[in-house]
Amino acid sequence: MSKLEVIARAVSNIKHALICGHIMPDGDCLGSVLALALILKQLGKEATVAGPDPVPEIYEFLPGIQGYRAGSPPEGDYDTLIALDCPVAERLGIGYRDLPGRDLTVINIDHHASTNSYGTYRYIDPQAAAVGEIIFDLLQLMKVNISLDVAICLYTAIVTDTGSFQYESTTPDTHRRVARLIEIGVPVSRINVLLYEEKSRMCQLLLSAALKTLSFSNCGQVAWMIVTRDMLRDTGAKDEHTEGIVNYARSIKGVEVGLLFHELPDGKYKISFRSKKTVDVNRLAAYFGGGGHLRAAGCEISGNINIIEKEVVAAAVCAAGGAGL
Amino acid sequence: MSKLEVIARAVSNIKHALICGHIMPDGDCLGSVLALALILKQLGKEATVAGPDPVPEIYEFLPGIQGYRAGSPPEGDYDTLIALDCPVAERLGIGYRDLPGRDLTVINIDHHASTNSYGTYRYIDPQAAAVGEIIFDLLQLMKVNISLDVAICLYTAIVTDTGSFQYESTTPDTHRRVARLIEIGVPVSRINVLLYEEKSRMCQLLLSAALKTLSFSNCGQVAWMIVTRDMLRDTGAKDEHTEGIVNYARSIKGVEVGLLFHELPDGKYKISFRSKKTVDVNRLAAYFGGGGHLRAAGCEISGNINIIEKEVVAAAVCAAGGAGL
Repeated sequence: MSKLEVIARAVSNIKHALICGHIMPDGDCLGSVLALALILKQLGKEATVAGPDPVPEIYEFLPGIQGYRAGSPPEGDYDTLIALDCPVAERLGIGYRDLPGRDLTVINIDHHASTNSYGTYRYIDPQAAAVGEIIFDLLQLMKVNISLDVAICLYTAIVTDTGSFQYESTTPDTHRRVARLIEIGVPVSRINVLLYEEKSRMCQLLLSAALKTLSFSNCGQVAWMIVTRDMLRDTGAKDEHTEGIVNYARSIKGVEVGLLFHELPDGKYKISFRSKKTVDVNRLAAYFGGGGHLRAAGCEISGNINIIEKEVVAAAVCAAGGAGL
Repeated sequence: MSKLEVIARAVSNIKHALICGHIMPDGDCLGSVLALALILKQLGKEATVAGPDPVPEIYEFLPGIQGYRAGSPPEGDYDTLIALDCPVAERLGIGYRDLPGRDLTVINIDHHASTNSYGTYRYIDPQAAAVGEIIFDLLQLMKVNISLDVAICLYTAIVTDTGSFQYESTTPDTHRRVARLIEIGVPVSRINVLLYEEKSRMCQLLLSAALKTLSFSNCGQVAWMIVTRDMLRDTGAKDEHTEGIVNYARSIKGVEVGLLFHELPDGKYKISFRSKKTVDVNRLAAYFGGGGHLRAAGCEISGNINIIEKEVVAAAVCAAGGAGL
């Protein structure tokens, strides 16, 4: 029995699952959670989708999103917790991260190179471009009918986590899975307009303000921007509008590492790391207590922004220089 | 014999082809021209690639691009002209547009809904997302081996003309063709970095300055920005760096038409029009003496910017309002 068949067997035994993604949910996490919930219901099972954080506005079009419960874990007679896209249980967030220790079957499906694996059943494939790809394969294996609603959820998961098929995680099979989803009827242009062309005015003003803070290391290989609480207040933008801004630092000629320092409501700084070709930003972020992927990672640091900035930039410059030697 | 088989037969009879795309060449046109030239040479034929305009810097990585001759048509004993991505012969540009009238076999391969078809052999498929897709199918039909160089050219053609697989022209077969190209070895991430992540610093600063000028019609359906000579001077950006800025106006929630007013060195204003779902900006631009496509068009106007702005915005608001009635 393949590892994915073990997961399929475990899913078939579910009566009522609590399905969760990670804190500050993204397209892959939400698309995968909702697709799996729709399938469980289709199979006559109960499924509750929940997480500590609210759903970003751009994902409100996802089929089944109205069932998503933001906040503390909703009460329920769950027999199984399905954790998607969470390399460590902490990523489930407050109220959820301790659930794997309870009297529950835990199914952990992820595509991060996990350092602290957990769960009764685990399926970790770091080669998968998105958890949405794994769910697609799981549904094929389970021989369930993929409805248009499920296809939209999985398409969204894959298109967002591959950066519109631009990241190196994108494989021939990524494109073949997406071909199948479009055949089921996914309206490609409409979904992409909803994802990328329904930005708020404040979002563009925040981008303008952030670009004004663009700074470069002497070597030109590291570029960074800062988003402060003042900038968020002045532009009327929300914290979720910082999403994607870091890419404008990385996408400059000669830049290997792009950084965004985002001041959170509690005064901490969230630092996003993006690299282009050589630097392992997962390691870089891990040094500061965070993590993620080879080319996209993040961490949170408390303290004085001037010191944090110097420290993180220095580490990034060294990582970029070291990689070039 | 299918129409594409007729083209394959015509290609097999070529001794020396002049292969051309359109003026101001883009990724689809250059990728398709170069892929076909590489294949002809692989088959022991002569192929010359040329066009009136220089190659934009971002396409300089394309295999075979060093053979591209910009300027007047190079002398040669051509028996065939292959025109790619040119709905009308005029699109071939000065020095080239009269060639279809000469004593040459003309092969016209295009994916625009052509109004003025030309050529000894014509293959026009408005359903194709890119001419690169048609060339891919042609090579399959000719049973020629697709080298990595050819695959890179065709991948670039398809990824650029589909807006990274986001436009409604993207089909399941678009993804399947791309799956095959990646299997041949196309380095997805590297190509996308070369296409989209080698922007100049000045380009990002100009974007920041342009976003600060963002304005909206009362109805919220029209958004516009201005790029003045002062802004270009202050940021150090070039005129070509305005490319793509108009999309930031269109990609705002509720906006149907995005506009960019770009002050040219001669004091005229170049106006770019982009629409999302309903407005025919080709017609809108035509009213001001310009033209283009359904969702992307442009024109140039002389005069006072305040008056020009009022006039064009009024027309765009009416077009958007009319479409909504």
